[in-house]
Amino acid sequence: MGIVRRNIDRVSTAIIDALGQAGVATVHEAQGRTGCFRSDMRPIYGGAQIAGSAVTISAPPGDNWMLHVAIEKLQAGDILVLAPTSPCTDGYFGDLLATSAIARGCRGLVIDAGVRDVKDLTNMGFPVWSKAISAQGTVKETLGSVNVPVVCGGQAVDAGDVIVADDDGVVVVRRADAEKVLAEAEKRLANEEDKRARLASGELGLDMYRMRERLAAKGLRYE
Amino acid sequence: MGIVRRNIDRVSTAIIDALGQAGVATVHEAQGRTGCFRSDMRPIYGGAQIAGSAVTISAPPGDNWMLHVAIEKLQAGDILVLAPTSPCTDGYFGDLLATSAIARGCRGLVIDAGVRDVKDLTNMGFPVWSKAISAQGTVKETLGSVNVPVVCGGQAVDAGDVIVADDDGVVVVRRADAEKVLAEAEKRLANEEDKRARLASGELGLDMYRMRERLAAKGLRYE
Amino acid sequence: MGIVRRNIDRVSTAIIDALGQAGVATVHEAQGRTGCFRSDMRPIYGGAQIAGSAVTISAPPGDNWMLHVAIEKLQAGDILVLAPTSPCTDGYFGDLLATSAIARGCRGLVIDAGVRDVKDLTNMGFPVWSKAISAQGTVKETLGSVNVPVVCGGQAVDAGDVIVADDDGVVVVRRADAEKVLAEAEKRLANEEDKRARLASGELGLDMYRMRERLAAKGLRYE
Amino acid sequence: MGIVRRNIDRVSTAIIDALGQAGVATVHEAQGRTGCFRSDMRPIYGGAQIAGSAVTISAPPGDNWMLHVAIEKLQAGDILVLAPTSPCTDGYFGDLLATSAIARGCRGLVIDAGVRDVKDLTNMGFPVWSKAISAQGTVKETLGSVNVPVVCGGQAVDAGDVIVADDDGVVVVRRADAEKVLAEAEKRLANEEDKRARLASGELGLDMYRMRERLAAKGLRYE
Amino acid sequence: MGIVRRNIDRVSTAIIDALGQAGVATVHEAQGRTGCFRSDMRPIYGGAQIAGSAVTISAPPGDNWMLHVAIEKLQAGDILVLAPTSPCTDGYFGDLLATSAIARGCRGLVIDAGVRDVKDLTNMGFPVWSKAISAQGTVKETLGSVNVPVVCGGQAVDAGDVIVADDDGVVVVRRADAEKVLAEAEKRLANEEDKRARLASGELGLDMYRMRERLAAKGLRYE
Amino acid sequence: MGIVRRNIDRVSTAIIDALGQAGVATVHEAQGRTGCFRSDMRPIYGGAQIAGSAVTISAPPGDNWMLHVAIEKLQAGDILVLAPTSPCTDGYFGDLLATSAIARGCRGLVIDAGVRDVKDLTNMGFPVWSKAISAQGTVKETLGSVNVPVVCGGQAVDAGDVIVADDDGVVVVRRADAEKVLAEAEKRLANEEDKRARLASGELGLDMYRMRERLAAKGLRYE
Repeated sequence: MGIVRRNIDRVSTAIIDALGQAGVATVHEAQGRTGCFRSDMRPIYGGAQIAGSAVTISAPPGDNWMLHVAIEKLQAGDILVLAPTSPCTDGYFGDLLATSAIARGCRGLVIDAGVRDVKDLTNMGFPVWSKAISAQGTVKETLGSVNVPVVCGGQAVDAGDVIVADDDGVVVVRRADAEKVLAEAEKRLANEEDKRARLASGELGLDMYRMRERLAAKGLRYE
Repeated sequence: MGIVRRNIDRVSTAIIDALGQAGVATVHEAQGRTGCFRSDMRPIYGGAQIAGSAVTISAPPGDNWMLHVAIEKLQAGDILVLAPTSPCTDGYFGDLLATSAIARGCRGLVIDAGVRDVKDLTNMGFPVWSKAISAQGTVKETLGSVNVPVVCGGQAVDAGDVIVADDDGVVVVRRADAEKVLAEAEKRLANEEDKRARLASGELGLDMYRMRERLAAKGLRYE
Repeated sequence: MGIVRRNIDRVSTAIIDALGQAGVATVHEAQGRTGCFRSDMRPIYGGAQIAGSAVTISAPPGDNWMLHVAIEKLQAGDILVLAPTSPCTDGYFGDLLATSAIARGCRGLVIDAGVRDVKDLTNMGFPVWSKAISAQGTVKETLGSVNVPVVCGGQAVDAGDVIVADDDGVVVVRRADAEKVLAEAEKRLANEEDKRARLASGELGLDMYRMRERLAAKGLRYE
Repeated sequence: MGIVRRNIDRVSTAIIDALGQAGVATVHEAQGRTGCFRSDMRPIYGGAQIAGSAVTISAPPGDNWMLHVAIEKLQAGDILVLAPTSPCTDGYFGDLLATSAIARGCRGLVIDAGVRDVKDLTNMGFPVWSKAISAQGTVKETLGSVNVPVVCGGQAVDAGDVIVADDDGVVVVRRADAEKVLAEAEKRLANEEDKRARLASGELGLDMYRMRERLAAKGLRYE
Repeated sequence: MGIVRRNIDRVSTAIIDALGQAGVATVHEAQGRTGCFRSDMRPIYGGAQIAGSAVTISAPPGDNWMLHVAIEKLQAGDILVLAPTSPCTDGYFGDLLATSAIARGCRGLVIDAGVRDVKDLTNMGFPVWSKAISAQGTVKETLGSVNVPVVCGGQAVDAGDVIVADDDGVVVVRRADAEKVLAEAEKRLANEEDKRARLASGELGLDMYRMRERLAAKGLRYE
Repeated sequence: MGIVRRNIDRVSTAIIDALGQAGVATVHEAQGRTGCFRSDMRPIYGGAQIAGSAVTISAPPGDNWMLHVAIEKLQAGDILVLAPTSPCTDGYFGDLLATSAIARGCRGLVIDAGVRDVKDLTNMGFPVWSKAISAQGTVKETLGSVNVPVVCGGQAVDAGDVIVADDDGVVVVRRADAEKVLAEAEKRLANEEDKRARLASGELGLDMYRMRERLAAKGLRYE
């Protein structure tokens, strides 16, 4: 506790933005169905879809001091990722911190705790994925750490990993895997267009994916 | 496990549509305050109000294979009802399956698990009531069953039962009871118009429902 | 049980309205970070921001009889605050009760249980903060009490206390503290304007709040 | 609501007792991994292992009146199965009701709600599987039903179905399936003895179940 | 925040001990089915049954500093009652604090948060009712208050109120009501002996409480 | 997915056993209050206190195939650590697997899911910390991985990390930190003996830790 890593490595903006375009469900499939955050991490408003480099924060329950420390470390395109050291739903973050984060080019916040001033944040267009919405305020008394490995939403995240977030939730892509995952994601997207058209025309998945034989082999019985 | 009932009996479209018009709260009252699903089964977007015949699915946790099997059994006006065999929040269903379901005339999905691609589903106007929104993908490895009795959202549902769903949640009407329940629901609706007008004009429920005497008899004391 | 306090003291409308204007997060900070309801008490629709005097209801699980009794006690500007005597998610309140409450000038409902007819309530502009949305109906068999002290959303509330509710949740201000809390809240609001501008221009909280020294004294280490 | 089925069919005591001997995990496997109650239905004390015919109760939240009605319907060897009509944790059942149930030969209670006097019940040796332990009392104001189909612990149960309960939880066996399930369970038990000895001697499941080939075929890679 | 009330009024030891003897379920019934804590407040070991005067603590999440302050205020026969200012499961209390509390004659702890060293506490015979067992440690950085009104386990508690706790959970009796509640509790206990004997001999509650007529009047139908 | 790391590095048995002796609360404090698992990971029986090297398992929901693969990788003194890839409460592990694990010298299981046959496991003295007890069986259809980094109970764990578990829960110590953490833990233990004696004799923590001044400086007020 009480450590700030000054410099972190980031993935190129081009890769990050393309992962953001692909969206959470596709990216998570592209990396072998891994990296999804717990499903109780929900967006405070619908429609936002972002990707960015994680600036991570490990913070005590009910203490948001480290957010101020982390904001100084933000670069344009980053996403704040806060994990409390024990379960907490307090509102660590509101419109003043968002104003400051936006001034540094921050794209959003993912927090395994609470957030407040959500009407303001919505009006400002600053997206947050959180476990709770709560006006309960926090103190500034105990140190935490910035840009250390954390577990947020049930996933291990290190500073510089890529975070993708949309209406389906949040997924983390390890920095080292980002390029490979993007390639796989783009393959999937290309592939889906054709499938969508065939399904829309009434073709069944049973036929398109040739499932009938394997279902029968497993013993599926029609009565 | 591993059984598909090919043919199920359905209630007439006229009755189904009228139950949908009445809405969940009224229908559930009309059948003696029974049939409501657990309140954590929420719509992915507001405003949808549907009714249809249940095509039921019993599926293993994290395995959506049976959805493909079930879609073949859909008729226009049906609603997919999926219950996992043990608690699960994975995203069993997304925009490709929705495309296929819509092509068969499906009106929506009720799932005691998770769903994904919710922005797409919203844009497509395909309503879903689910326990979770989650990008977590599923496999296709283990058989389940289609059109067997299931427990979904805490309620027993059989194939062909009528599902009504709106912003208040989901209710099931047993196939054999649908006509009787509709009659009762329509009586209630007719009745409510008059009550609403009187309450709006300032008349108290205490007087309109003649509660004062019974309250006093039970011992209510004003201080 | 079974008691109705006829007359309760209320705070002046001017103070109540000003507290409503300040909003939940500010008011709760202004009274020393106290009074916030549990964060699972959520609004049924976004954007409402209200304040009013609490008319409290202690009701048995699954029994909404006392709501009718309480509505008679409403004055213009009041807010209904219902706490069940044991945990319950049933839909105690719907569009007919809302019609009646609106006719008495009621500004909203805060209920540590469920509510239904939420599409109608939304269309009527009657805001509700609740633990659940549920069509499950209730009976009228067992007495509760009106205008007695209750615990709702984890907070002690007495009749006549001021309730403030918005998208961040709900906070209670003790009647005797309302004036003092408002003064403090207005100080905070005045203060925030300047901070917001400085943060927007890129000044860091670390500097604006002079945190660097205290962080160093606590042992924060940059690597 | 408000119905009591006087006469229900039961499975023979020999079959019931043998299912009880087999235990929950084995019985549930023997019927194709179905019938397990939610895992939050826990015994109030360890070590009890029972089976019996279900006498079912559908009761309003916070109202235990129907337990008195159900007790009259008990025969020696029966198990009370109570499902509230909406979620409730109140203590529906305590030492007086247990005294009465024991006098009728009742073997235990499975309740998707709360129970109290658990120290007394433990001393009396009356086992209960419940969702909660709570001293919160209940009223006797609203009718429910006895010996009707219910959903308890997430499973559909009808009067006369066989309930098996032990430290692993609760499982229901449909009355019509009991004999077949028992035969299957006994096959499994016979089978397990040999397996246990081989595993204890150090043989690996990988070899005993011949899993290596299938794992390799699925693509398992050792590094 | 940051206030310690030095002197609090307590109920006489004779009344407190007699309430403890009566137990939680009886006491809560005796005061009109009120005062029960949430059912997730469970004892760390079975069999303890205590009563005492509440020394209340309002503490920040993850900060146990005020426990040291409160221990100085303990008198023999008191019970510590801790409520965090926002939800927290950290282990605020362990064997060292228990050693200190026991030295002051403290009878136990009721905490709407976590506790640790539970094996030691069990061996020491120091009973705790808590929401969680957690080794997660706490800091000593932020002030709270001692002997102020709190909400713990969903109930309002003031310093000097009587806490009764056993295997069924926890109940609070307002200081001013203790004598009256005890009288009522003793009446109930006397009453129960006779009922127990009659039920044990096979008499039905339906007859003993003369329920048959009222059930019929409400419409109960036997089929 | 589908990867098994054959060889992992382990900490020396002497260090592991000493960490086990120190217990969860002390070890977690010794490493700066980090590493504690979620508090819903509870032991299936009281009194066990173990430490060992983690053999990690990432497994699909409802699929326990990888446990067989992992058991082959066990060395005497190891602990199995299973994390499902999405939330699951199924009973992945029972008495047959325990028999096999014990034959390999395994000290216990930590599983962020369910376990069954808990009466047998208790009789065998094989300790398990789990999120649930559930008879619900699992399949063997989908690959997972063994000895890869996982997140279990909200903590990142890699193969070869030291797991300590007792009645307070579970803590992980990074392999590289084990020696340093042990040294710190032993310092704390030595330190505690003296404190315990002083507190038992009636000395207050306020005095022993010299808190009075700092409390006053923060503004604590006695009334």
